[in-house]
Amino acid sequence: MATVKLIEYGEASPEVRAVYDDIMATRKIDWINNFWKALASHPPTLKRTWESIKEVMAAGAIDPLVKEMIYIAVSATNGCEYCIRSHTASARKAGMTDAMLGELMAVVGMANETNRLANGYQVEVDTRFMTLPR
Amino acid sequence: MATVKLIEYGEASPEVRAVYDDIMATRKIDWINNFWKALASHPPTLKRTWESIKEVMAAGAIDPLVKEMIYIAVSATNGCEYCIRSHTASARKAGMTDAMLGELMAVVGMANETNRLANGYQVEVDTRFMTLPR
Amino acid sequence: MATVKLIEYGEASPEVRAVYDDIMATRKIDWINNFWKALASHPPTLKRTWESIKEVMAAGAIDPLVKEMIYIAVSATNGCEYCIRSHTASARKAGMTDAMLGELMAVVGMANETNRLANGYQVEVDTRFMTLPR
Amino acid sequence: MATVKLIEYGEASPEVRAVYDDIMATRKIDWINNFWKALASHPPTLKRTWESIKEVMAAGAIDPLVKEMIYIAVSATNGCEYCIRSHTASARKAGMTDAMLGELMAVVGMANETNRLANGYQVEVDTRFMTLPR
Amino acid sequence: MATVKLIEYGEASPEVRAVYDDIMATRKIDWINNFWKALASHPPTLKRTWESIKEVMAAGAIDPLVKEMIYIAVSATNGCEYCIRSHTASARKAGMTDAMLGELMAVVGMANETNRLANGYQVEVDTRFMTLPR
Amino acid sequence: MATVKLIEYGEASPEVRAVYDDIMATRKIDWINNFWKALASHPPTLKRTWESIKEVMAAGAIDPLVKEMIYIAVSATNGCEYCIRSHTASARKAGMTDAMLGELMAVVGMANETNRLANGYQVEVDTRFMTLPR
Repeated sequence: MATVKLIEYGEASPEVRAVYDDIMATRKIDWINNFWKALASHPPTLKRTWESIKEVMAAGAIDPLVKEMIYIAVSATNGCEYCIRSHTASARKAGMTDAMLGELMAVVGMANETNRLANGYQVEVDTRFMTLPR
Repeated sequence: MATVKLIEYGEASPEVRAVYDDIMATRKIDWINNFWKALASHPPTLKRTWESIKEVMAAGAIDPLVKEMIYIAVSATNGCEYCIRSHTASARKAGMTDAMLGELMAVVGMANETNRLANGYQVEVDTRFMTLPR
Repeated sequence: MATVKLIEYGEASPEVRAVYDDIMATRKIDWINNFWKALASHPPTLKRTWESIKEVMAAGAIDPLVKEMIYIAVSATNGCEYCIRSHTASARKAGMTDAMLGELMAVVGMANETNRLANGYQVEVDTRFMTLPR
Repeated sequence: MATVKLIEYGEASPEVRAVYDDIMATRKIDWINNFWKALASHPPTLKRTWESIKEVMAAGAIDPLVKEMIYIAVSATNGCEYCIRSHTASARKAGMTDAMLGELMAVVGMANETNRLANGYQVEVDTRFMTLPR
Repeated sequence: MATVKLIEYGEASPEVRAVYDDIMATRKIDWINNFWKALASHPPTLKRTWESIKEVMAAGAIDPLVKEMIYIAVSATNGCEYCIRSHTASARKAGMTDAMLGELMAVVGMANETNRLANGYQVEVDTRFMTLPR
Repeated sequence: MATVKLIEYGEASPEVRAVYDDIMATRKIDWINNFWKALASHPPTLKRTWESIKEVMAAGAIDPLVKEMIYIAVSATNGCEYCIRSHTASARKAGMTDAMLGELMAVVGMANETNRLANGYQVEVDTRFMTLPR
């Protein structure tokens, strides 16, 4: 169980309920997942976090499915079970195939490996990597 | 400077040189970056790492540019300067625009934030996120 | 279950029992939590860790409740469930309100986000931040 | 240098300039640090991040100086140089003494140590830590 | 449960079965642990990861038991339960005593502590540590 | 430069000087590295950390050189430059060869990779790994 009481829709303040309604409308779903119910213990954090996520995950220069995969990459690197499971579910829903998940995990694994090799050997950055693209 | 001597092409053993040649041929470049020169201090690690990277980063179910962006996401999360700079350079070369980098960083930032909110509140995973897609 | 046998008070050596007694006396409690029972599998680590914690968490220039909140901040960042839960319990006992926990998590979340933005863009430290206060 | 061009006030768009003006007014300073100049490469991220930080770091149930110290705790745990240096400077300005910094670092160090002991031994959470307060 | 279907030996493709056979032969065991059954959802990752692990963990300049302890050190630092438990089991099988586990955890804990002290204070590397051994 | 003033031997208080003397005597060296000079800004942390390190890194059930390599493994995983460089120097002095460093880094890299694969797929721990030895 969470370290705070989860706030159900029925008992939520109008302020919290407005965020819940927007989550369900934006995502075209009819339920609220535990993450938001926990954040609702601190309404300003609920509102700010939801508005940020809504803006950041919307379609833009990067495809929403790719954004979900980037979310999984970060969450797997940080070892956040909730985030891995919820974003894997979202990515599946958005069309991620088994092959895509396999390749995603392969890249995440290799990146974590080479991050440590580069740091472990304290490899100096090549001059060519230090210039801005024009 | 690195904690090991960087091995230049001219002084490399045939075994190391074969890997360097494959790196340059695969990437259609005419130089070797410091990461590989450091790994060459332990030839089995050089060979194994290069072959893994070559396989993992090749086109497949996920586009190579997306793979580069996933690499940046992991490296930014781990704070590996070498990896951030080298993969940002690769991604730029592969077509990542300023807007794409901006959105990538925004997702990476938010994922790191919500990872800590989910863990910090110890939010329980919703049952709906625990089932395998069929 | 832990990867080592937990040492209960009744079966503890005099050396371990002395630490357990000091923990209970210092904290004014009548039980030992699992963390210490696991460390007791290696008595020097039990003793050294307890003595360090006792010194570090005592009242000083920083208030003990603030210290507990800093502990939660680090534990949430590292994703250590045991530490998050035990220090959240301690902080609650020491007076942390729901609003304080909400603000604490908000700061922890934002810090993790901006840490990745600063690293992801490899932002150079401003000269003004490089001088020592006098 | 950063991986994106830093946007100076003189060349900023009205949208970016409005954020810069708000930063300077809120913090009662007359300059913009590099972090914001880098975020300005993606104006929506600049605006969203600044508004979040302004809300989160304001006085509330937790004192602003304590919030700065929590920021340092997270940044030291993640090893983000920019964030450590900029928030150490802010905390000093807000009154953090040498003794407070010493105790802060001591808590951060111990928390990182015991996080790994708890995880390394896979210590099971005590039932008493699993209940919500009250 | 995992986010992918675990592939049992009986239902595995010849390609996956060949890897499973090699794992059992190399380790002189008659079962396959869940990690490999999960990787089998993406056969190229299964094959590549197993071949890398086999090469890296074999006896060489470092003793296999020491390699297992290094694996535990990394896994405890990253907080990966699966990895901590499976490599603690392997290390025990290879002869790690309680005293060795105790000292290992003590070093891991202290390293995580001093890593944060060094980063938190942004201690400059001494010139003497910057030279290569000759 | 560090965020605190480094305390040189000549200006140190008797309390700090006693620790410096013990460091030099224990390690049979005639200089103090910057890490301790930074910790000296908070004498209780200097004393406690040094005494812990002295106890933990001494010969015991694990060889001192192996302990140094474990220290490098943790530091490379956390990306702490100071710690990587200082402990690589110590390990070299204690006899670590190029081949040993190469194998150490290879294990560290693979462990970081498989940690993310295990977490990313949320692999369930096998029952056989959940029992205590004996």
